Amino acid sequence: MGAGTVIALDAMGGDDAPDMVVEGMRLARRRHPEVSFLLMGDEARVQPLLDRAPELRDVCTFRHTPDVVTNDAKPSQVLRHGRKSSMWLAVEAVANGEADGVVSAGNTGALMAVSKFVLRTVPGIDRPAIASFFPSQGPDVVMLDLGANVDCDANNLVEFAVMGEVFARIVLGRENPSIGILNVGSEDMKGHAEVRLAASILRETKLPLRFHGFVEGNDIGAGTVDVVVTDGFTGNVVLKTIEGSAKLFTGFLKDAVRASFLAKIGFLLARPALQAVRNRADPRRYNGAMFLGLNGITVKSHGGTDALGFANAIGVAIDLVRQGFNDKIKDELAHLGDPQPESSVVSPA
Amino acid sequence: MGAGTVIALDAMGGDDAPDMVVEGMRLARRRHPEVSFLLMGDEARVQPLLDRAPELRDVCTFRHTPDVVTNDAKPSQVLRHGRKSSMWLAVEAVANGEADGVVSAGNTGALMAVSKFVLRTVPGIDRPAIASFFPSQGPDVVMLDLGANVDCDANNLVEFAVMGEVFARIVLGRENPSIGILNVGSEDMKGHAEVRLAASILRETKLPLRFHGFVEGNDIGAGTVDVVVTDGFTGNVVLKTIEGSAKLFTGFLKDAVRASFLAKIGFLLARPALQAVRNRADPRRYNGAMFLGLNGITVKSHGGTDALGFANAIGVAIDLVRQGFNDKIKDELAHLGDPQPESSVVSPA
Repeated sequence: MGAGTVIALDAMGGDDAPDMVVEGMRLARRRHPEVSFLLMGDEARVQPLLDRAPELRDVCTFRHTPDVVTNDAKPSQVLRHGRKSSMWLAVEAVANGEADGVVSAGNTGALMAVSKFVLRTVPGIDRPAIASFFPSQGPDVVMLDLGANVDCDANNLVEFAVMGEVFARIVLGRENPSIGILNVGSEDMKGHAEVRLAASILRETKLPLRFHGFVEGNDIGAGTVDVVVTDGFTGNVVLKTIEGSAKLFTGFLKDAVRASFLAKIGFLLARPALQAVRNRADPRRYNGAMFLGLNGITVKSHGGTDALGFANAIGVAIDLVRQGFNDKIKDELAHLGDPQPESSVVSPA
Repeated sequence: MGAGTVIALDAMGGDDAPDMVVEGMRLARRRHPEVSFLLMGDEARVQPLLDRAPELRDVCTFRHTPDVVTNDAKPSQVLRHGRKSSMWLAVEAVANGEADGVVSAGNTGALMAVSKFVLRTVPGIDRPAIASFFPSQGPDVVMLDLGANVDCDANNLVEFAVMGEVFARIVLGRENPSIGILNVGSEDMKGHAEVRLAASILRETKLPLRFHGFVEGNDIGAGTVDVVVTDGFTGNVVLKTIEGSAKLFTGFLKDAVRASFLAKIGFLLARPALQAVRNRADPRRYNGAMFLGLNGITVKSHGGTDALGFANAIGVAIDLVRQGFNDKIKDELAHLGDPQPESSVVSPA
């Protein structure tokens, strides 16, 4: 393998694994010719796929792993008995320096538990968070946490705000990104104790964060802020609600096409335009949830994705590695509890 | 006024009040010729509108009310100082038997606080909830709570399940409606303590409830269950996320129409079909959130609605009155804590 970026892949995670993983690796390789892969999985199932992909021979190191983490495995079970699984060994490759990042489409809870255990959280972060992009009327919106932490206190939310801000700045290139806390209204008195306390901490912080205040559910699609901060329960429900709404709307459109002959002709003419709509709302474009706050890059692909979506998730991991996201987040966090933020390198001039 | 249904209306609530309220009343009157109205509001602003609507003369009793509840008023302020407001007096008309139900497009928190104070909750219900309909791939889905209770314990969720079930059965005519609790996954171990406890209570209840188990955000649009139960924080965020997603998708479609000449022609041909899609997803069709669990019918219209949406909210109030929803929910709830459910009239045969 060359000196470029190395991404470890869990060949066995995802509904259509390992076929989808190997095919996704081929697509990703075409887009990122300087990347190489460390693939972990069941030899009997993976090797035949690799044999049919000679272009991967020089860029993919395959390692047989005897166990697979199933979708219904509890994270605690995986921590006790999963050390020989493809997921665990792929994450471990990041911890021991063999790989720069890892991508898995497997069991989210298990991947988070293993990543926390093996990679550990960055100093200053109590709990890692899952972040992803969402389409909006403006530029894409980053939202976190999407399900790593079902119960969150105000300090967790503040940490998510800091991580989201660094992410939007470093990975998306937003200058001075704005941050909102998801709530049931925009007024200060709204919401439960944890969101109110987190907001008051962010309003008074000396960190150079542009805190917008509270945002509501419709502000995600409106693109009101760059970063939406929420607890993992709400974030996960919202993520899946958006997926469900997109599917419902697409279904309504399909019914409309079938409704009349004129509509069929009309939609045929408008097909390229409609395809553009679908592309903008395509969940595969947004595939690749990032685990933020760990000493290593872990990207979770949607379990039901295809090769194209998996290739996008690999692309997200490559981006995070190249941008040096983790080092930058560590710098920022080192100053979060700083008693003299005036002297901090990240304080405003 | 005749012996038919009487609906009290807060003329001053809503972005376009009172014009939108008076116009909505006209539309509702055309659909429901046996309904009459008791309208509360500022005479200087409302009387000129009524003067221009002679067809309302015999069916609308107008009463001048000196105060208005503003959108930024805290519920506690309204409880202390709002007794002469159009909102309060409209709710009071239900409590003293002058009206059968009330509709307001004003401040949601204030309307809930006033309704709780004036109408009181039904015996057996700790907290009332806000419920509404959502479009799905199947029949409409009922979801509650949509924001009345930011913090909910397991017992609150169980009460919401019972109220939602009665609602789906009585108002929507569903036989044996299924109930799901919104969560981050469908497995028993998922989610925080309150949803897990609520689920275990519902699994073991002897009430004839068809408890499906946990559902996720995408199950709302998929129509997996008839009734989705959640806390008011999550429910409110989800409600507004769905509104935002619909707006985003519609915006994408509009951009697509503008994108090319062929697309313009195509969409012109498909216009009736597209209009059908818009109608199915039209939030005005779903306007009218119901406050369940009170000794009286209160319907909250969206603040930003137009006359058509307000007329739909009036229609929802009329439905609830006609179906005797409150009496039926009281019957059901009387048996919820029943120590011998075998002898309950609602127990299965």
